[in-house]
Amino acid sequence: MDNAGGPVVGVDVGGTETKAVLVDASGTVLAQRRSATPPPSSDTAQRVLDVTCSLVADLSEHTAPAAVGLVVPGIVDESRGVAVFSENLGWSDVPFASLLGERIGLPVGFGHDVRAGALAEHRLGAAREASDAVFLPVGTGISAAHVHSGRVLAAGGYAGEIGQVPIEAGERRRIRLEAVASAGAISRRYQDRTGTPVAGAADVARRVAEGDPVATAVWDEAVDALGGALIWLTALLAPEVVVVGGGLSHAGPLLFDPLTRRVEEDWNLQRKPRIVPAALGDRAGSLGAALLAADLVGAT
Amino acid sequence: MDNAGGPVVGVDVGGTETKAVLVDASGTVLAQRRSATPPPSSDTAQRVLDVTCSLVADLSEHTAPAAVGLVVPGIVDESRGVAVFSENLGWSDVPFASLLGERIGLPVGFGHDVRAGALAEHRLGAAREASDAVFLPVGTGISAAHVHSGRVLAAGGYAGEIGQVPIEAGERRRIRLEAVASAGAISRRYQDRTGTPVAGAADVARRVAEGDPVATAVWDEAVDALGGALIWLTALLAPEVVVVGGGLSHAGPLLFDPLTRRVEEDWNLQRKPRIVPAALGDRAGSLGAALLAADLVGAT
Repeated sequence: MDNAGGPVVGVDVGGTETKAVLVDASGTVLAQRRSATPPPSSDTAQRVLDVTCSLVADLSEHTAPAAVGLVVPGIVDESRGVAVFSENLGWSDVPFASLLGERIGLPVGFGHDVRAGALAEHRLGAAREASDAVFLPVGTGISAAHVHSGRVLAAGGYAGEIGQVPIEAGERRRIRLEAVASAGAISRRYQDRTGTPVAGAADVARRVAEGDPVATAVWDEAVDALGGALIWLTALLAPEVVVVGGGLSHAGPLLFDPLTRRVEEDWNLQRKPRIVPAALGDRAGSLGAALLAADLVGAT
Repeated sequence: MDNAGGPVVGVDVGGTETKAVLVDASGTVLAQRRSATPPPSSDTAQRVLDVTCSLVADLSEHTAPAAVGLVVPGIVDESRGVAVFSENLGWSDVPFASLLGERIGLPVGFGHDVRAGALAEHRLGAAREASDAVFLPVGTGISAAHVHSGRVLAAGGYAGEIGQVPIEAGERRRIRLEAVASAGAISRRYQDRTGTPVAGAADVARRVAEGDPVATAVWDEAVDALGGALIWLTALLAPEVVVVGGGLSHAGPLLFDPLTRRVEEDWNLQRKPRIVPAALGDRAGSLGAALLAADLVGAT
């Protein structure tokens, strides 16, 4: 990031929390803030703009930004600067780029949380120097973003929604990928089968390590489903590296060993992707938003 | 195609037959020739060059071409002009672009048969005006080529080899997609189950129409497997249109109705691709080769 115009702010609107970073020309985070994302209502989009402006104002006390980047979940059409749809946040067709620009009086970059995360992992994180890479966040949902020659493919905002693919899981009925293999699904499925509440997928992973057979079955079904998705995206996109992000990326060898083995066993072409954890953690989205901003005001 | 430098020749090396077309600036085919592809041997690449030069010389009697395009199957790295690998033709690391250029003394475009076919369907055929399209030839094998903003993504030549993906077919064991759903697999599987020889997948399709239960089972398994591939590529790439090519594309409603229904039923996002047959038939590859040539010598 070579932001000739000075530092920039990146804002990532998550399902529950909105994260903001102030980043300098070298990509260094100078300051960061977090705020609760407004709950869905008739005016969520306006309230998200309020939170964004407040976070930008707060970070501007540190040093004045040259531009602001904003990224949101759901279906996003970057080319028009519009949030097309978000089921979780309850909006459709919000022209965030122009709305935020009017309120803030600065150049505004606008994008999609996962594609911005992919851009950040490509330029600053675990996918540096790859000409074809996939960012695969596995958290409350599952999606994939394909970075090709430095650009993230959007296809009108619809590319990469692999969490919605129906698969056949352990129970041999059709179920959507993210209902089996997301971090949320892993804890939910364990709780459903045992009646025992768990503190997220990490807690299920701990029980796998302790030999809990139900935890092991739930985990194996999730990893098997993710492995299937990995083979399809490898076949279609031939990435050199797949960067797994989201909550599940902290699971270490329990996740990465079987995924790597799956690719070794099931994919018979010479070019196989490396499967690696994300480097930027939950800051990938806000750093990506900052990159969108920096791209507006200086060379990157 | 606006080939300022005059007509061009496109040559498509298939597994058994090599096709060549002489094409004018408007994309009209002025003449065409076919020749047997040399069988695999220690010098297949040289013999393919011989056949190519002979076809070009033959078509040049009609009118002198300004450039030649050559496309081959297997793993092809267009950026280096090299045929990396072909199991069927038995070669590896053949620098076709420079070898043909030396022999022929004309500008040479070199590429991959399926990606060239995708380019042709995009510019001249069934995927015109789509900003994201997938060309899905289903013949002796199965692969996919993704056209994005007018360019076909290659990823070093490895993208799109979906025929190699292991799936679970009717028999509930892991089997590669193209061993279930290619045109070749359909006739082979029918013969294996009945002992009755058939004249290709079209013959099996005819038996489906007549109510043959074995033909129906084999056909349904193939269409189900192709439907699964369609959902994955829709989720990852979000194409506006999927152009099905190869031998199976002539099957009409028996193929396209269930594939379209599968996308309607299994894909829940707003943007669903149209599933349409290829417009250029078995000339897609040679026309795509001609486009690669035309791009070298004039605006397209």
